[in-house]
Amino acid sequence: MIVERIKTNIRKEAVEITSIVAKHVKGIKSGIVVVYVPHTTAGITINEAFDPAVMEDVLNEYMRLIPYSNKYKHLEGNADAHIQVILTGSSITVPIEDGELALGRWQGIFFMEFDGPRNRKIYIKIIEG
Amino acid sequence: MIVERIKTNIRKEAVEITSIVAKHVKGIKSGIVVVYVPHTTAGITINEAFDPAVMEDVLNEYMRLIPYSNKYKHLEGNADAHIQVILTGSSITVPIEDGELALGRWQGIFFMEFDGPRNRKIYIKIIEG
Amino acid sequence: MIVERIKTNIRKEAVEITSIVAKHVKGIKSGIVVVYVPHTTAGITINEAFDPAVMEDVLNEYMRLIPYSNKYKHLEGNADAHIQVILTGSSITVPIEDGELALGRWQGIFFMEFDGPRNRKIYIKIIEG
Repeated sequence: MIVERIKTNIRKEAVEITSIVAKHVKGIKSGIVVVYVPHTTAGITINEAFDPAVMEDVLNEYMRLIPYSNKYKHLEGNADAHIQVILTGSSITVPIEDGELALGRWQGIFFMEFDGPRNRKIYIKIIEG
Repeated sequence: MIVERIKTNIRKEAVEITSIVAKHVKGIKSGIVVVYVPHTTAGITINEAFDPAVMEDVLNEYMRLIPYSNKYKHLEGNADAHIQVILTGSSITVPIEDGELALGRWQGIFFMEFDGPRNRKIYIKIIEG
Repeated sequence: MIVERIKTNIRKEAVEITSIVAKHVKGIKSGIVVVYVPHTTAGITINEAFDPAVMEDVLNEYMRLIPYSNKYKHLEGNADAHIQVILTGSSITVPIEDGELALGRWQGIFFMEFDGPRNRKIYIKIIEG
């Protein structure tokens, strides 16, 4: 298992990590890569990496659906982030073909920070087959 | 990696693809199958395949939660679809037992079109083990 | 594939199953574990297992976003549960390192009951590599 580290800069942020993942699958003829986030207030997803407005819209809608508020029972002020992670997911799985991620033309992999800024870890696990 | 193609017919549509996936796991004694959608405005999920009203309700609620609107920053008119994909996911993973998908009695696999009609691809990756 | 059984006690409930999964990865040097829920009104997720208020907030927000109601087309009275499953997911994947789940410090695995109480099954599939 490979461990990568990133630093986020604001409370809600979609950080593209496609190249961080892609470099580790070079030389793998066939298999899958699981990218796993070991945090409870950050998740991971796949979506358009071309127009940054897409992920801005995503974060805005997440904040509208699950607002920052003092109504929650969890008293650390980041219950919104925990819930947003569950709507997003803590891992993604992508097929590997001939040393490359089998992403679609417009797809990128995004680390979803919901309670930054923080120092974060990403686990990358490759299964050949 | 196997590539399958489907055609969707309307803007929002849940297309059951269980049989498309099932045919490729025949003969696999044990393992997992990852079904991956290489698009940014379509996703994939698992739910009830018996009563079609279930997936109608799902699509209606998705359109209520993330409405089609001109308020988004992404200007292609399909920001709702991008966000709906992130709430759904771009891949599913199902165990394989004795040549069959280990789905529950009522479960089916659904390709979730959020910005159709379009010609779409599905990647099917089997890992034995 | 390992099959585990649990019993849920109320309609909406997050049941921590980390130890049920952890016991099956002992002795596995490296790989992934897929935990799969073969039901259409229960899902699975990963989040904070320390403060129980976090999962209470999650369930409360899920009930606010997708309310129990008679407005749905699916007439069995549990359409809310089906939709909540799709927002949550039917499987999780976690890396295995030296016989242990590579969970983060605060993470636990939760079976998400959305239409209990019921007797439920969990499929655990380990892929070494």
